[in-house]
Amino acid sequence: MKMLKEIIETIRSLPSDLHGNDFLLTWEKSTEELQKILWTAEALKYLRDHNISPRIFDSGLAVSIFRDNSTRTRFSFASAANLLGLQVHDMDESKSQIAHGETVRETASMISFLTDVIGIRDDMYLGAGHTYMQEFSAALKDGFQKGVLPQRPGLINLQCDLDHPTQSMADLLHLKNYFGSLEALRGKKIAMTWAYSPSYGKPLSVPQGIIGLMTRFGMDVALAFPEGYSLVPEITQIAEKNAKESGGRFQTMHTMEEAFAGADIVYPKSWAPLSIMEQRTQLLKKNDQQGLTELEKTCLLNNAEYKNWECDKKKMALTKNGSALYMHCLPADISGVSCEQGEVQAHVFEKYRIETYKEAGYKPYIIASMIANSRLPDSAAALEQFVKNGCPRVSSN
Amino acid sequence: MKMLKEIIETIRSLPSDLHGNDFLLTWEKSTEELQKILWTAEALKYLRDHNISPRIFDSGLAVSIFRDNSTRTRFSFASAANLLGLQVHDMDESKSQIAHGETVRETASMISFLTDVIGIRDDMYLGAGHTYMQEFSAALKDGFQKGVLPQRPGLINLQCDLDHPTQSMADLLHLKNYFGSLEALRGKKIAMTWAYSPSYGKPLSVPQGIIGLMTRFGMDVALAFPEGYSLVPEITQIAEKNAKESGGRFQTMHTMEEAFAGADIVYPKSWAPLSIMEQRTQLLKKNDQQGLTELEKTCLLNNAEYKNWECDKKKMALTKNGSALYMHCLPADISGVSCEQGEVQAHVFEKYRIETYKEAGYKPYIIASMIANSRLPDSAAALEQFVKNGCPRVSSN
Amino acid sequence: MKMLKEIIETIRSLPSDLHGNDFLLTWEKSTEELQKILWTAEALKYLRDHNISPRIFDSGLAVSIFRDNSTRTRFSFASAANLLGLQVHDMDESKSQIAHGETVRETASMISFLTDVIGIRDDMYLGAGHTYMQEFSAALKDGFQKGVLPQRPGLINLQCDLDHPTQSMADLLHLKNYFGSLEALRGKKIAMTWAYSPSYGKPLSVPQGIIGLMTRFGMDVALAFPEGYSLVPEITQIAEKNAKESGGRFQTMHTMEEAFAGADIVYPKSWAPLSIMEQRTQLLKKNDQQGLTELEKTCLLNNAEYKNWECDKKKMALTKNGSALYMHCLPADISGVSCEQGEVQAHVFEKYRIETYKEAGYKPYIIASMIANSRLPDSAAALEQFVKNGCPRVSSN
Repeated sequence: MKMLKEIIETIRSLPSDLHGNDFLLTWEKSTEELQKILWTAEALKYLRDHNISPRIFDSGLAVSIFRDNSTRTRFSFASAANLLGLQVHDMDESKSQIAHGETVRETASMISFLTDVIGIRDDMYLGAGHTYMQEFSAALKDGFQKGVLPQRPGLINLQCDLDHPTQSMADLLHLKNYFGSLEALRGKKIAMTWAYSPSYGKPLSVPQGIIGLMTRFGMDVALAFPEGYSLVPEITQIAEKNAKESGGRFQTMHTMEEAFAGADIVYPKSWAPLSIMEQRTQLLKKNDQQGLTELEKTCLLNNAEYKNWECDKKKMALTKNGSALYMHCLPADISGVSCEQGEVQAHVFEKYRIETYKEAGYKPYIIASMIANSRLPDSAAALEQFVKNGCPRVSSN
Repeated sequence: MKMLKEIIETIRSLPSDLHGNDFLLTWEKSTEELQKILWTAEALKYLRDHNISPRIFDSGLAVSIFRDNSTRTRFSFASAANLLGLQVHDMDESKSQIAHGETVRETASMISFLTDVIGIRDDMYLGAGHTYMQEFSAALKDGFQKGVLPQRPGLINLQCDLDHPTQSMADLLHLKNYFGSLEALRGKKIAMTWAYSPSYGKPLSVPQGIIGLMTRFGMDVALAFPEGYSLVPEITQIAEKNAKESGGRFQTMHTMEEAFAGADIVYPKSWAPLSIMEQRTQLLKKNDQQGLTELEKTCLLNNAEYKNWECDKKKMALTKNGSALYMHCLPADISGVSCEQGEVQAHVFEKYRIETYKEAGYKPYIIASMIANSRLPDSAAALEQFVKNGCPRVSSN
Repeated sequence: MKMLKEIIETIRSLPSDLHGNDFLLTWEKSTEELQKILWTAEALKYLRDHNISPRIFDSGLAVSIFRDNSTRTRFSFASAANLLGLQVHDMDESKSQIAHGETVRETASMISFLTDVIGIRDDMYLGAGHTYMQEFSAALKDGFQKGVLPQRPGLINLQCDLDHPTQSMADLLHLKNYFGSLEALRGKKIAMTWAYSPSYGKPLSVPQGIIGLMTRFGMDVALAFPEGYSLVPEITQIAEKNAKESGGRFQTMHTMEEAFAGADIVYPKSWAPLSIMEQRTQLLKKNDQQGLTELEKTCLLNNAEYKNWECDKKKMALTKNGSALYMHCLPADISGVSCEQGEVQAHVFEKYRIETYKEAGYKPYIIASMIANSRLPDSAAALEQFVKNGCPRVSSN
């Protein structure tokens, strides 16, 4: 419990403007706010691991809107909401009257009368996902100010076209614990690299989230991709600025080997070329199925030129002591397992498999922390109260 | 809290037979029962707004059966159930074995062993929705009497072919608060009118619900529609009878202008012609897709003759002081927003947009009130207990 | 309450290894363990019937994976989880990234970080369902041992290709209460017979579950089916072994009349021929739609030769005093009701309809008991605590 008390004191000491606000992009948050999210996630995990219920809500809805498939994030959101006492209600747009031509501002109010938090995944349309969330957020604010909503639900980005903050923050918490502290990450080299995949159209939000976040903590971030696979320019600029401010480094390169050289951490992961994503967005909007099929072919042919962008034993040998930490948001395209050839060789993945599962295991707590800090004016006080109450999560255990 | 105490005393004073019974049609309920539903809804809203949890159930299921799409009612039902401590479980008929040829009486028992309330939307088949609910209700009663069910779950009509009581009661609560009291509604003129929509086959239950309910409280109800768009005759007769008994008025007319003249409230809303609905019901039963397409064409051509049935600035000017309250169950077909031409002009809708959202915001509390009064022998006593316990809905808030 | 105290003492006296383990097949469990499941189910039912909440969990997920349609079991699982305080979260494989080529061991971890129990139905593929559950179970164990999962969720078989333990145990509890005790079942004759159905491809798990379980308690189990409709040989062998050990009897025969003769209980129920199921499994794996259609035709023609395998008045007259208890897992194919000709005549079914509903009504409690015994080291102590706390399930009731 001593450790928990120290964590709570740290949380109390961190100034933040998280209460009453959304979590859309990590680069909109201060470093103290990001730390507060991390430490609160750890405290919540500690409580649950010690069978103490951190239930904030006696009732309340947590609404999810998934505009793309999801397993991990769906379960993470459900787990986080449930841990705090909220009931998840999914808004399945196919079963709703949204197609009716309803406006975002109307939908936002209609699903929020008794709702405490809303999580949205909207990563299919470049230039649209984050914009949709901003519009949604403004509608919630308006509904609250005009007396329509008794409370303003917090909005959490469960992946948009720009960022994937619940993923990158879980990744950061994993690194913090793997290397011992946030301070220990200073100077560590992380290789965020493109990797070959036989599948197509993967969003850019994971690599963008990683370069946008890891540059905040003095890390040496090496971004590598083949020609034509660059990320959204404004995010690359944010990474550059972050690196300068935090005393870290941000570099772009065009071979996997260069990025892996001396790296402490590698994160090889496929994504679609920006130009393909832009064309795809237009075709999706027009619902041009033939155009989409053509584009997919082009893209896959494109990808196939870079089959050597695979995380293999040889490239791993280039990393610091040949033993960099391998990371992935999962599911990975594992050569010979989930596809003929993919992002990572089977024996490399196998070596780090358990670590990637642990990495994923932080996501429910990161989301719970985002909810708690968005809803509670003083999350440290709430955590203390949970300890004091000592209500068991599982009774007679 | 003084206000809440008075509300609780009012609830206590109203005799009712709501406990242990269903809520299918407003015209099956006494005026005192309707008032009890309204006041309990207000009390529940007060409690939640003051962060007091009105949680009746430590566990229990609230089953929903939606035989038509829904956003608002789906979320309202989920919110209401959750507020009282029930977990919503949707019976998705496409994932069930119902197609197997299972009887209604069997399904009713199978989903009710640990269920406290069931909400059904069945508004697609004229002459069938209410009948289905009656059959369902009888099956629940039978299952309980024969010892199959440990309790008889309450059944709530979430929209049938005849009535939409959770909508009309939310509308009534909105009017009560907008004009100050139920007494203040006496003599007020409400224009329930047809309006043009480019979409097709909208149920008759909203206008029927409105004329069936508002005539209970001494209002001057003007129903207007083009030739051929009359409502189910038995409901019109109920409205006439209600008006006579309550000292109100019920009149039918065939121009929007006549209905709007001097109105305090207007409710312009599209619905399908009765004869079309009857044919559609037959075709749906036969699953005659070609016939349905033909019928849709006929209906839309029909509708298109009445494009001037739009709630515009000019018609609004005819109302009392040119400032009648505009109402809609949402989503509205807004000209130039959700369709080229529809039920209401954009600037008229915009003026009343926030009011329509508030109107919608009462629905979760109306449903929660229906559940509470159906389950509790003494809802006033329960409300007093909630106040006494003072259990916060959100702790550390 | 005296009865409940005795039940709790009985539960305490039964040695078991249920805690921390899965429930996949009844024949993997000791007779004491099966009894413990039955008595705990009764205790939980008693508590709920007396408005005492047996809520073990303040939060936690109960994940369901249905690879085939379900109403009864879906609602039973949801009800059981909810009664104990868990929130059901369904893993809809069509909305997940499983198709991505994700491994079972990865999925098992990803959905289990904050999960207490997982229920799986996988009955479509002969030779695959139970194997899938074993693989899943091993992955959960591995995830827990390697520190990925903070707890090892319990796995419950909601129907596989070999057994349907939540059904057969509910059936057994029904028999126990119908005849007064487990002891009273000794020597009673149960006819588990094939019956004609116009539908196709029904799993073998119900008859296998019945012969595998009822032979444990000294019953005289008569299995009857037309030539070609035999069950999985390993299960028939288990039934034979069970009967020998328990002092009961297990016999196979080829007319319904022989099985019904002098029977105390009859369970006429259709299933597909083993060879058809084997071919079907191959065709499903290849997604050979034409092959499946051909096979269905063959199978239905096959079935049609045995239309006289119907539970009719005449055959019922052959049973003990002409009044054997009729059982069915529901929904039954009732001649003239759900199909032209089926498993049972309408008036026979009607006579026992309420009994079949009561039979079904035990399933939620059997599942709740399986969850409770899997999660709690001492379920007797927990039940005592619930009584002592006396927390009402419905307050102000």
